[in-house]
Amino acid sequence: MPNIRILTETDLRKVIDLDHDAIDCVQNAFVALATKDVRMPPILRLDIDDYNGEVDVKTAYVPGLDGFAIKISPGFFDNPKLGLPSVNGLMNLFSSKTGMLEAVLLDNGYLTDIRTAAAGGVAANHLARKDAKHATIFGAGVQARLQLKALTLVRNITSATIWARDLAKAETCAKKASLELGIPVSATSDGKDAAANADIIVTTTPAREPVLMADWVKPGTHVTAMGSDAEHKNEIDPALIGQADLYVCDSQAQTRILGELHHAIDAGIVTADATFPELGQVIAGNASGRTSDDQITICDLTGTGVQDTAIATLARSRCDKAAAGVEITS
Amino acid sequence: MPNIRILTETDLRKVIDLDHDAIDCVQNAFVALATKDVRMPPILRLDIDDYNGEVDVKTAYVPGLDGFAIKISPGFFDNPKLGLPSVNGLMNLFSSKTGMLEAVLLDNGYLTDIRTAAAGGVAANHLARKDAKHATIFGAGVQARLQLKALTLVRNITSATIWARDLAKAETCAKKASLELGIPVSATSDGKDAAANADIIVTTTPAREPVLMADWVKPGTHVTAMGSDAEHKNEIDPALIGQADLYVCDSQAQTRILGELHHAIDAGIVTADATFPELGQVIAGNASGRTSDDQITICDLTGTGVQDTAIATLARSRCDKAAAGVEITS
Repeated sequence: MPNIRILTETDLRKVIDLDHDAIDCVQNAFVALATKDVRMPPILRLDIDDYNGEVDVKTAYVPGLDGFAIKISPGFFDNPKLGLPSVNGLMNLFSSKTGMLEAVLLDNGYLTDIRTAAAGGVAANHLARKDAKHATIFGAGVQARLQLKALTLVRNITSATIWARDLAKAETCAKKASLELGIPVSATSDGKDAAANADIIVTTTPAREPVLMADWVKPGTHVTAMGSDAEHKNEIDPALIGQADLYVCDSQAQTRILGELHHAIDAGIVTADATFPELGQVIAGNASGRTSDDQITICDLTGTGVQDTAIATLARSRCDKAAAGVEITS
Repeated sequence: MPNIRILTETDLRKVIDLDHDAIDCVQNAFVALATKDVRMPPILRLDIDDYNGEVDVKTAYVPGLDGFAIKISPGFFDNPKLGLPSVNGLMNLFSSKTGMLEAVLLDNGYLTDIRTAAAGGVAANHLARKDAKHATIFGAGVQARLQLKALTLVRNITSATIWARDLAKAETCAKKASLELGIPVSATSDGKDAAANADIIVTTTPAREPVLMADWVKPGTHVTAMGSDAEHKNEIDPALIGQADLYVCDSQAQTRILGELHHAIDAGIVTADATFPELGQVIAGNASGRTSDDQITICDLTGTGVQDTAIATLARSRCDKAAAGVEITS
């Protein structure tokens, strides 16, 4: 009868935060994806149109890690009307050697938030100018603040702007971010202005039409697009991918279908079989990153199973040390 | 903070057994698949060759059911050397309306065993001769006994034979089955003999080469093949699919890739775009089943997410009534 550790969101929040360890953890995951015989099958996707819901299941086996996670992310977009969060979910962690279930991480999406923001930090660390100071975030949700925080961990960000279509939302988010990070954060609903002032731009919206236009982005800017994780989502003007000096993605197998790249292919700006470097290859030194300060670089993030396996493994090991959670024999 | 019910294998064994209710539950799932706007995405499959392991993730949304299951089935075939079972796993049950996690069913594969055997019962009920009396099971594992038991629930089975390559294993299994079911069960390692005496044959092996040859099957026999759930598995001679009067499957989208049909397509016996009735269509009366007592019928079962959603929903509702399990707030 196996023993399975049940970890709540409270347990997990005590041991995992968005910090340098989380960024290192996710960075190592990308390097593994680029250099090891990682198995990362296509995302399982279940659409429940009757309730405006979608569910993604992601996983990856990383040689050398004790465990592999199977992460389930439901997003039900009418939930706020019921007073419930749109995004939820859990991670199941299994032994890589035996396939036995070892832990159930009832994180309600918290670990996904952390590993997603950490990927933004990793991308900026390897692609943004060293002297980047001003960050602009498109979007005003949880990821907006987390992505900005991740940038402050890898660059000396001294000011930021939050853009949202709804200025009030941008202001609320900017106020919270400024308080948390101790830097001035302004709010705007003018995307062109917001982009013009930025050294780093991160798009964090669920947009179905571009919110960031190609001619708004000045030379030297790094852009991370992390909102698009489904076929119908599109945050950046496909022309920007054509104009950029460097396009990098988390997983080309995914961005061809789900990411910004997919829209550039549809628009005829990029051929369907064009190949681009993946973030892990850049980190590992197997592909070039930014080579000059006036280049425009893009990182297209769709979210990968290796990040889930990496963060779940880290969380479990810390919970083990802290003797957190309850053990159920089944 | 959502409340999530954690149910152990012990809890689940108390409320779910292989009985008429389980068979009805799975039958309803197949009917839903044939008649409702069910969403059943392709199976997510993770192979961990380093440890001779594979993981399948299945799911389905069935309109009208409160919940949908995401079922994770790891199979690690070196586990017995470590004193562990090869097959494990769990089901996660979510609200269909909100996507919130409601229950974690730590069944270690038990519910999968039940819903798989129940499908064999459903297939025989709708495709075998009414007067079928002798059943032959190929294979001597857990499913061998469960499939035989399922047959006894839908036909007046008065005797049975267990075939295994290893006669000792067949004998052990036959003895247990006879004791459990109260009918004579013989053991053999001669597949031709075993098939010749059968009114119903169920193949339950992990074979990679056919164990049941086409010319062994006498007119009037119903054959259910349930062992093949992966590309490389193959239990029945592809020629049998060509010779049979009726071929039915659980999900043609799956059997074209994973089931016995896949090998018949590879052998050129069936064209890749040939269409066949699904079991749910036969049950619902939207496709013909057996029309005479001398026909050979085949049912090709690969295991479907609708079965998982159906059995998990039933198990949860019974556990709710029994106030089984523990509730965790996370």
